[in-house]
Amino acid sequence: MSNSINWINTPAAKLNAQERAKAISRQNSLTKPEGSLGRLEEFAISLAAMQGNAKPQLSKVHCCIFTADHGIAQEGISAFPQTVTGEMIRNFSRGGAAICVLSREIGASLEVINLGTVDELESLENVTSSLLGLGTNNFSKEAAMDEQQLSRALHIGRQAVERAKLNGNQLFIGGEMGIGNTTSATALICSLLDLPPEKIAGPGTGLDQAGLKHKISVIKKSLKHHKTQITEPLKSLQHIGGFEIAALVGAFLSAAQIGVPMLIDGFIASSAALTACHLNPDAKKWMIFSHTSAEPGHRTVIDSLGVKPIINLNMRLGEGSGAATVVPLLRLACRLHNEMATFDEANVSNKN
Amino acid sequence: MSNSINWINTPAAKLNAQERAKAISRQNSLTKPEGSLGRLEEFAISLAAMQGNAKPQLSKVHCCIFTADHGIAQEGISAFPQTVTGEMIRNFSRGGAAICVLSREIGASLEVINLGTVDELESLENVTSSLLGLGTNNFSKEAAMDEQQLSRALHIGRQAVERAKLNGNQLFIGGEMGIGNTTSATALICSLLDLPPEKIAGPGTGLDQAGLKHKISVIKKSLKHHKTQITEPLKSLQHIGGFEIAALVGAFLSAAQIGVPMLIDGFIASSAALTACHLNPDAKKWMIFSHTSAEPGHRTVIDSLGVKPIINLNMRLGEGSGAATVVPLLRLACRLHNEMATFDEANVSNKN
Repeated sequence: MSNSINWINTPAAKLNAQERAKAISRQNSLTKPEGSLGRLEEFAISLAAMQGNAKPQLSKVHCCIFTADHGIAQEGISAFPQTVTGEMIRNFSRGGAAICVLSREIGASLEVINLGTVDELESLENVTSSLLGLGTNNFSKEAAMDEQQLSRALHIGRQAVERAKLNGNQLFIGGEMGIGNTTSATALICSLLDLPPEKIAGPGTGLDQAGLKHKISVIKKSLKHHKTQITEPLKSLQHIGGFEIAALVGAFLSAAQIGVPMLIDGFIASSAALTACHLNPDAKKWMIFSHTSAEPGHRTVIDSLGVKPIINLNMRLGEGSGAATVVPLLRLACRLHNEMATFDEANVSNKN
Repeated sequence: MSNSINWINTPAAKLNAQERAKAISRQNSLTKPEGSLGRLEEFAISLAAMQGNAKPQLSKVHCCIFTADHGIAQEGISAFPQTVTGEMIRNFSRGGAAICVLSREIGASLEVINLGTVDELESLENVTSSLLGLGTNNFSKEAAMDEQQLSRALHIGRQAVERAKLNGNQLFIGGEMGIGNTTSATALICSLLDLPPEKIAGPGTGLDQAGLKHKISVIKKSLKHHKTQITEPLKSLQHIGGFEIAALVGAFLSAAQIGVPMLIDGFIASSAALTACHLNPDAKKWMIFSHTSAEPGHRTVIDSLGVKPIINLNMRLGEGSGAATVVPLLRLACRLHNEMATFDEANVSNKN
């Protein structure tokens, strides 16, 4: 790999053990039976350690959606036509997509970065073009992208996180949209965890059984095709990944390096998180896993990372939608932590 | 039972099948793979049927906390001293308790109704006194309350819901606080489901193993003592229930009758919901179960009702805190449902 991606080897920032200890002590002084707020206590404590602030804050949340097309869609592995990627980018631009509505409700800033679609798009409000090509190559036949495209995709993700930090955001959500990207994510996960595609592949946006069977055979063939090449995570990302997935990997690595707490969405985002953790295991310390996706392979990814997502509402939309959905729960956790009275303040008797 | 509680036999209001059908059709037209918002779709559709509005609204949410002491606390079944009930009511008054913080964050109105504590309390801001006695009697020796107290408690709950509706609230949360009330709730659940206490009893606010064993023996003895009396739900509620639990039962029955969607909290609230459903099975149609409590017996109650709570964050605080925590998720569900663009509006191609 070229020198331009040496930055990914920078270690993750350290969590703040002192503020974490203060936060634990505060939790145990609040007017409730110890531990009775369950995981809400854990979220506040984790954010305290990440933010270096015993009273963590989540007023500013940034959501960045990376979009791209996938050459593998030519193999007929999606229930939706490939034109939908561009059409959905226009929908993001006009504010009609799920993540737009969610961002408005939670008061998060939303940024859409298009890395390249098969249909060249007109200039669109609220959409940044950082084009790396007309989508990736068809990875059943050749590498999804070249080294330079990979390097640029990682860098675009990194820059998005750096901007989010400069703008004072206290939490970063990375989302994605791209027809065919469950196929790419599945191939990537299989490569990283050395699992056969039938263990991970699922219906994505809505394949039937025959479609799923075909998708598995395409992934199997592709993994075989790249077998000698995909012997390390970056090579897997380049050969069978996607532009938006690589941007997410860059974003997640960077967030860990510069110390921005990140909220991980579902199946696709978790494939990027898994890649980031294979490149730098300490990145996981800065990740909060938001939800368990209905895409069946997600559980395997979660289990391999040893994490426990916050909610399971059977969602499988992507766009960062699952992550955005849990933001209010994290905010409630912080507010309870910061505003509840202590036993002393309220003159309430503690346990016998 | 006296005539004054005949109102509990009024049937539940009907859900609106037409608006439900419209809501389903709208969900399937939105720019996402069908079903990909998972349970968020289900919540919006359920609320549409309850509110009789294909575009349901949750701007106004009311939270009503019923508080009371329990004579059974004399048997040493709680990890906290009984004075904590009164102390926590003062904490509610000053806004320092978990539910106060949660209500502020979600913008819900909060009402605290005290039905009677062993310590007589001074007048407190934000707390209504509707005293039925200095807590219930010790039900290991006698009936927790008399028929008149039961009737009044049910009525107080009913009135709270009626006020909430008059004030334009679109969702009702009933919460509770009362040292000893997991013992009362456990006895009630055991009586309704004909289960031995060891199947339901848990640590409550934090009993150790010896404490739990003692709690089980107290409940066992009490169930035996009242055996010939507690042959129907109202008799169980009177003999081994609590003032705040009875008020919740009245609130839940009334909410179903006048058609106010209600969000059910954890273990104690679910014991009241179970009682309400035993009195009127149709009441369940108006209930949304918010969370699975860490109190182990909660799962049995949930399973017996055949419901699936929205979150499981290992919470076990009561006060309506679990219910308040999921309000933002229901609001996100409504907003997505109401504001997302349809395939037609956004010119996005649908599934192949």
